[in-house]
Amino acid sequence: MTTPKSTNITWHHGHIDDESRTRLLGQRGCVLWFTGLSGSGKSTVARAVEAELVERRHFCAVLDGDNIRHGLNSDLGFSPEDRTENIRRIGEVAKLFADFNNIVLTAFISPYRADRDRARQTVGEERFYEIYCAADLDVCEQRDPKGLYKKARAGEIPEFTGISAPYEAPESPELVLKTGEQTLEESVQTVMDFLASKNVWPEEI
Amino acid sequence: MTTPKSTNITWHHGHIDDESRTRLLGQRGCVLWFTGLSGSGKSTVARAVEAELVERRHFCAVLDGDNIRHGLNSDLGFSPEDRTENIRRIGEVAKLFADFNNIVLTAFISPYRADRDRARQTVGEERFYEIYCAADLDVCEQRDPKGLYKKARAGEIPEFTGISAPYEAPESPELVLKTGEQTLEESVQTVMDFLASKNVWPEEI
Repeated sequence: MTTPKSTNITWHHGHIDDESRTRLLGQRGCVLWFTGLSGSGKSTVARAVEAELVERRHFCAVLDGDNIRHGLNSDLGFSPEDRTENIRRIGEVAKLFADFNNIVLTAFISPYRADRDRARQTVGEERFYEIYCAADLDVCEQRDPKGLYKKARAGEIPEFTGISAPYEAPESPELVLKTGEQTLEESVQTVMDFLASKNVWPEEI
Repeated sequence: MTTPKSTNITWHHGHIDDESRTRLLGQRGCVLWFTGLSGSGKSTVARAVEAELVERRHFCAVLDGDNIRHGLNSDLGFSPEDRTENIRRIGEVAKLFADFNNIVLTAFISPYRADRDRARQTVGEERFYEIYCAADLDVCEQRDPKGLYKKARAGEIPEFTGISAPYEAPESPELVLKTGEQTLEESVQTVMDFLASKNVWPEEI
């Protein structure tokens, strides 16, 4: 065995601090945690805000049932333990995206305060924004975009939030959207104004 | 119960197609999957490439033991099942980052071909690049930056890759880095040239 050539090569760690990263990338990472009943508009608002952000060349990521339940969390069911693990992993993934300066929009019912508070702890209080999509149950049930309320009323879905399982509304969310009353455009504008007020893209202010 | 005002409001889904997103954000998403023995330089190269990319204002994310094992995968141990689940979740998270146009750099030993191939399927063949950090075992063991080889030789770490557990080298990686012979700067340059050749930032070409 010959002595490897590289033994004495000094390898310097590349490193970029958070402040330089934010300055160079033009935005800081944060998490918009949408919560609300099924049909309250969480995913719709999140996707519309995403389109608006990308138009302005901001990097953002939407985490919702479509891309999480079929991928990362495809091994999880709907037992209480699995629901908690579902939200735990989403909080961890949201943190990773925020650590790398993405604006994250999560759209899950996330009915339990304890689970949402845990996500807040994981992400970090100073960059976690809970957004309550506050449409009344009767509005959501009339919309019923996926026909889930009908099934839940017929007893075909056990433990359906709002019907046969509790929804614990946020006590002090950073933002409330009246998604049962206002238009999508109004909700999107409210979120965009909120982001601007939080200094998420410092260079534009 | 009064009829909610919003029932007849039409909510248009915001949507942005992949091509527009890539044009607006100036880069497409992809995954650089670094694999190699402990001490072969995976994380060091990934972090140095990250710094280089951020300097050029590219959004990127490094997934490595530091941010995954203590966070998302803190519930997993080192049994064969847990190791496979570890890599499965990393593949899913890498896919999410790539879906939102981040350049992802994963730095895990990932010793099994089957696990790496599964990650490739998850992410998508056309944007998954396997990078083999091909330092010889004797080089890695001499470096032993974390003192793990010493412990493994002393029998204190069971099933340590390269000592008491197999490492299945890639058969046709997209890129090989001779991290046992060349400097860090050379490895970083090789990766940057590779990314440019793959048209990852179309607007600059």
